[in-house]
Amino acid sequence: MTELKVNFNRLWQDLEELARIGQDPRGGISRPSFSLPDLEARDWLKGKIEASGLALRQDSAGNIFGRLPGKSSQVVMAGSHLDTVINGGRFDGSVGVLSALECLRRLKEENFELDRTLEVASFTDEEGNLVGDFLGSRAFTGQLNEGQLKNVRTQFGPPLIEIVEKAGLKVENIPLAAKERPEILAYLELHIEQGPVLEEEEVPIGLVTAIAGKRYFQSTFVGRSGHAGTIPMELRQDAFISLADFALRANQLVLREYEDDTLTIGRVVLKPGSFSIIPGEANFSLDLRSLDHQKLEEMEGEVLALAREVASTRGLSFYQQLLDSTEPVIISESILNKLKAISEKLGYDYRLISSGAGHDAQIMASICPVGMIFIPSVDGLSHVPEEKINPSDLEKGANLLLRTLLDLASV
Amino acid sequence: MTELKVNFNRLWQDLEELARIGQDPRGGISRPSFSLPDLEARDWLKGKIEASGLALRQDSAGNIFGRLPGKSSQVVMAGSHLDTVINGGRFDGSVGVLSALECLRRLKEENFELDRTLEVASFTDEEGNLVGDFLGSRAFTGQLNEGQLKNVRTQFGPPLIEIVEKAGLKVENIPLAAKERPEILAYLELHIEQGPVLEEEEVPIGLVTAIAGKRYFQSTFVGRSGHAGTIPMELRQDAFISLADFALRANQLVLREYEDDTLTIGRVVLKPGSFSIIPGEANFSLDLRSLDHQKLEEMEGEVLALAREVASTRGLSFYQQLLDSTEPVIISESILNKLKAISEKLGYDYRLISSGAGHDAQIMASICPVGMIFIPSVDGLSHVPEEKINPSDLEKGANLLLRTLLDLASV
Repeated sequence: MTELKVNFNRLWQDLEELARIGQDPRGGISRPSFSLPDLEARDWLKGKIEASGLALRQDSAGNIFGRLPGKSSQVVMAGSHLDTVINGGRFDGSVGVLSALECLRRLKEENFELDRTLEVASFTDEEGNLVGDFLGSRAFTGQLNEGQLKNVRTQFGPPLIEIVEKAGLKVENIPLAAKERPEILAYLELHIEQGPVLEEEEVPIGLVTAIAGKRYFQSTFVGRSGHAGTIPMELRQDAFISLADFALRANQLVLREYEDDTLTIGRVVLKPGSFSIIPGEANFSLDLRSLDHQKLEEMEGEVLALAREVASTRGLSFYQQLLDSTEPVIISESILNKLKAISEKLGYDYRLISSGAGHDAQIMASICPVGMIFIPSVDGLSHVPEEKINPSDLEKGANLLLRTLLDLASV
Repeated sequence: MTELKVNFNRLWQDLEELARIGQDPRGGISRPSFSLPDLEARDWLKGKIEASGLALRQDSAGNIFGRLPGKSSQVVMAGSHLDTVINGGRFDGSVGVLSALECLRRLKEENFELDRTLEVASFTDEEGNLVGDFLGSRAFTGQLNEGQLKNVRTQFGPPLIEIVEKAGLKVENIPLAAKERPEILAYLELHIEQGPVLEEEEVPIGLVTAIAGKRYFQSTFVGRSGHAGTIPMELRQDAFISLADFALRANQLVLREYEDDTLTIGRVVLKPGSFSIIPGEANFSLDLRSLDHQKLEEMEGEVLALAREVASTRGLSFYQQLLDSTEPVIISESILNKLKAISEKLGYDYRLISSGAGHDAQIMASICPVGMIFIPSVDGLSHVPEEKINPSDLEKGANLLLRTLLDLASV
């Protein structure tokens, strides 16, 4: 059994096949949930699951499962997601689903008698291209209700109700996924790091200790627009200058008082947005993340107070709307200890690492202990066409996943 | 002669007729140069000029003139422009052309024997919707050459060469407008203030003493993008934070050291522009204006040096491209004195004022003495559907224009 390994060539070939679905002429892969490429990828995965002799199941949220039964119907699950951002990469999410599939396929080939049932999971819309992150795992863990979904318009226009119909789903049934799920004992997820740490330290495996929680705000400074040439500087209520003042001070605040936490302004839209007109409105995104619930709450309070202070000092108004919120998660110590022990047994270098990005594992943590394995991202890149991994790192990660699943499936 | 006044009802009716051309369902008036509404407005003006018994002429740049001949063929000219920004107002430009038309019409009705010839002028593309401000007056004053125009693509896509053909013009002939022009002795322009000063001080007439010069830059900070959750704050090269730092410091610099001058950032585009991605690129517009050439040069130098310093301190790159540049103009003292004297004679309150906005008069200043009359903008608004004036202010401005034209046309 010490020699049990994944069939890495087969796993790599799966990744190559999947990467052909949703190739975007503008670069990378565009496979947002329920887009035509995503529907094609779902069919492809279902075919793979059936061809492997695993029992295929899809729940009311469109989450796809492949099952390898054990003596008990209690489930140890591993997975991730197949959807991507627009012009994203080929490894984010995919490595987690396809490694788990390969693990179950190998165990089935070896005819292992499992004490517990294993399942590979592919969750719907992890990237939140429709209505916010983690639609599938939120439904699966009972964190969605019908009212939240029914009248939701997606960011691409058509209501969710029409979009999910294309995948044979009904919006009102999405929350039923929680009722349909088996008893879950543990959830494991292999993922690319999406950051530079493992690569810089030349460590092939990161064992995740905590996943950051986040707050997404859509925010606006409202001042007064006017002709750039005719309104003296000292009489202006320039919404962009207020945003600049806020952004710089908030950045300094987080750097100074919230080590390890992050604040990001990724989108800015000025109105009217013309060369020679003072911006009367500055709309911007505000992304706050922390590994600690208390710190996240405090940072949120301080940052929003700072925005209101800047607005009031400069005679403008400030508005914010909370678009999304997830809580930080501490990874199960018993699973982390297993991952450490198995890494050592396999002779793989590892380091402990926290995750600033959100993952389905974070949502799954509300119903069971979870564990996460990171492999290095080349140049720390993710969500871009240039997203890349070293095959040998994935091989180690998949072997670690295989051995840990086997351990968790044994009484 | 003390009783000579414009026929204000007729002038106001002209403004109402013109305002019906190019009404935009999204609000205000959209009559950019050579758009269908602009072509319609041109035809409408030509009809008005001919119906008034003035001699109609159009030059190779599409500038439209109506002439009232005097003993000498030397011309005293008054005018402005009929084109608007998208979703603009009904008074910017229009009041200048139509007041001048009304002045010439009144003088013709009264059968005045003029020593000098008078002309009303409507200049092409003052708003710069095609290739930068003042296409018509720049061509008229010899500031354009064929090479500058031939390969120009307009911001709406089709090359200039195709667009001007719709108005029966040839791109290669636009610079010929300078050769076709008569000898110009003086140019007067009546315009809305586009700012709050006159209204706040309840003064109906502003006599312009200087027009600001400006520099338009398209500028970019280039850093490194990355996932908002996985790149620690202290390792980031966040292009937006650099822009915020620069914007705030540049704003403070101009407020502190360049009184009366302005700096405006009206447009910002972040790339990739996504909620959870650190901006790798921040593109922005930079609009610098000053009434003084030396100060404008110094401000430009200091502001760009500051941008480079911010970039270098934060480990980013900064690029800028000069898109447009006009020089400040000091208004002719002799014309200003005439305007003052006639205002006093007419019993009109006035104040001296400078113009932060650019005008055709600024371009005309390169070939003759110019004078400008401002009337108040309600709420200081311009370039918006809500642009508004008080009719009684326009009546005073038009009468002042009439009496000054008559004075300048007399030896």
